[in-house]
Amino acid sequence: MTPPTLHDVEAAARRLDGVVRRTPLLSDPRLDAAAGGRVFVKAECLQRFGSFKIRGAYNAIAALAPDVRVRGVAAMSSGNHAIAVAAAARLLGAPAVIVMPADAPAAKREDAADQGAEIVLYDRLTENREAIARGIAAARGIALIAPFDDPHVIAGQGTTGLEIGEDLAGLGVTPDVAFVCASGGGLAAGVSIALRARFPAIAVYAVEPEGHDDIAHSLAAGERVENAPGVRSIADALLVDKMGALPFAIAQTGWAGATAVSDAEIRAAMRAAFRWLRLVVEPGGAAALAAALAHRPALAGRTAVVIASGGNVDASVFAAALNEAP
Amino acid sequence: MTPPTLHDVEAAARRLDGVVRRTPLLSDPRLDAAAGGRVFVKAECLQRFGSFKIRGAYNAIAALAPDVRVRGVAAMSSGNHAIAVAAAARLLGAPAVIVMPADAPAAKREDAADQGAEIVLYDRLTENREAIARGIAAARGIALIAPFDDPHVIAGQGTTGLEIGEDLAGLGVTPDVAFVCASGGGLAAGVSIALRARFPAIAVYAVEPEGHDDIAHSLAAGERVENAPGVRSIADALLVDKMGALPFAIAQTGWAGATAVSDAEIRAAMRAAFRWLRLVVEPGGAAALAAALAHRPALAGRTAVVIASGGNVDASVFAAALNEAP
Repeated sequence: MTPPTLHDVEAAARRLDGVVRRTPLLSDPRLDAAAGGRVFVKAECLQRFGSFKIRGAYNAIAALAPDVRVRGVAAMSSGNHAIAVAAAARLLGAPAVIVMPADAPAAKREDAADQGAEIVLYDRLTENREAIARGIAAARGIALIAPFDDPHVIAGQGTTGLEIGEDLAGLGVTPDVAFVCASGGGLAAGVSIALRARFPAIAVYAVEPEGHDDIAHSLAAGERVENAPGVRSIADALLVDKMGALPFAIAQTGWAGATAVSDAEIRAAMRAAFRWLRLVVEPGGAAALAAALAHRPALAGRTAVVIASGGNVDASVFAAALNEAP
Repeated sequence: MTPPTLHDVEAAARRLDGVVRRTPLLSDPRLDAAAGGRVFVKAECLQRFGSFKIRGAYNAIAALAPDVRVRGVAAMSSGNHAIAVAAAARLLGAPAVIVMPADAPAAKREDAADQGAEIVLYDRLTENREAIARGIAAARGIALIAPFDDPHVIAGQGTTGLEIGEDLAGLGVTPDVAFVCASGGGLAAGVSIALRARFPAIAVYAVEPEGHDDIAHSLAAGERVENAPGVRSIADALLVDKMGALPFAIAQTGWAGATAVSDAEIRAAMRAAFRWLRLVVEPGGAAALAAALAHRPALAGRTAVVIASGGNVDASVFAAALNEAP
């Protein structure tokens, strides 16, 4: 596998035209004041099926040979990729089987099932989802749609960055910093390709949960490092054991670094998005905004773009974040 | 005063170009299934300052003669018009004084004050806000920006309908029904002008809180009727005593009727917008969606457009709606 290029991201954008929603790029003076700089938020929580994941999933399934696609697809995911593969498969007329952790949010399990997918649950703390998914794909002779280690998936996610670049250029704004949540790293990889093509000086930071900061360790070590097993975080969407090989290759030259945010910082960002942007952002989707609001790095006099990557959150989790004292 | 025309709405759109956000028109298959028809939601909760009100307020203040505008403006409002007048006045370089009920949501009082406006509180159940605001305006020799009984305000709100019409036409969709929340009736009046110009057969329904259904009574009586005093509703934005004279004139020929929704139906619509659209919608802003989901009128085989008019809601109120059993 070789990493995708800007050309691949642009090809994905053509494939996704009319399939994905062009989500708005939002801002608010109070958010700017809290962050200490200008902040633009790409509202991918408003994307079809509730997260950016439909971009990569649809692009990858559409790229399959028709005789392969018709047999069906398999995927492993903590939630949003599951929903996206199920939805993209349905849109493209393929059956789908999805391997999900048993502790995935109820909203995400329901949404994947709503798309007509077959759901296989596993224990995230003791079982290896990749082995389970690969086993199913091999046994049934169907294609496995990887959540991030796939050039078509990364190119699809990168279309988010193309839209951000177009919108900022339309406003005459050149961003200094981009914050993108990362776990496998597919979104941050694709977005860094698109943003750096348009804004060569932009510093792209991956944002990961505290205690689950394998990306920072991997970039420091010069090789991919695994997280300690059993780590928990409110950011259910960001709990992959190890980042992808392709995202890592892109990250080594394309990312300025990685920064980590706490559960409390994530909940504060969810409240900020609620109050100032009227958006429902899920915990993992709020990680990038949390980094901007936590001033890591400091934004004084600078302009940041932040991706609010998804909004599939259980009502009880969202209400608890709102009810927490600020 | 004479009611505004489509020409006035189009002039407002030119004035608002670059000032207001073009908010997205969203849909979701689960929402369609729940409503029993196709539903498109205009997400004005994502508008600058959190509601459609900036459209009318800015249009009205921009239309003042410069020597009048510079002296300042006064407004009376339960919240969103207050924020909008304060924000529009600041954008146009005019001082603002706002008369608000003491029981307005904290979020709305803070937002109006954040815009640098002087806030005067009154008791909504015992005092007459119009008399207070008119007294201040007369004493200071400044212009009163009425919340709905002003042709420029109605024309500004109507730009919401122009955008809906353009977006639906772009999708090749002809809507059968529009649901618009109404209290003074400015939004529903402006939107009905814009939508009926493009879709002559559309049935525009005003949606009001149960027990506060003066619009239905006014349309039936052929003259404006007041609500009984002291009625409470979760929809703090929809508690005007009596609809406006200009909106009433437009309603008599331009609206198909009025329908009322309960607090429980409003909370259910807030949960639906949270779950399926990832939007934060305030109670009054969810009234129109509540009508669609309550099948009043029935939507089987039909296409409805609904305005989610605002998202300025206290966290405790939103969390309580989420935590309520469905």
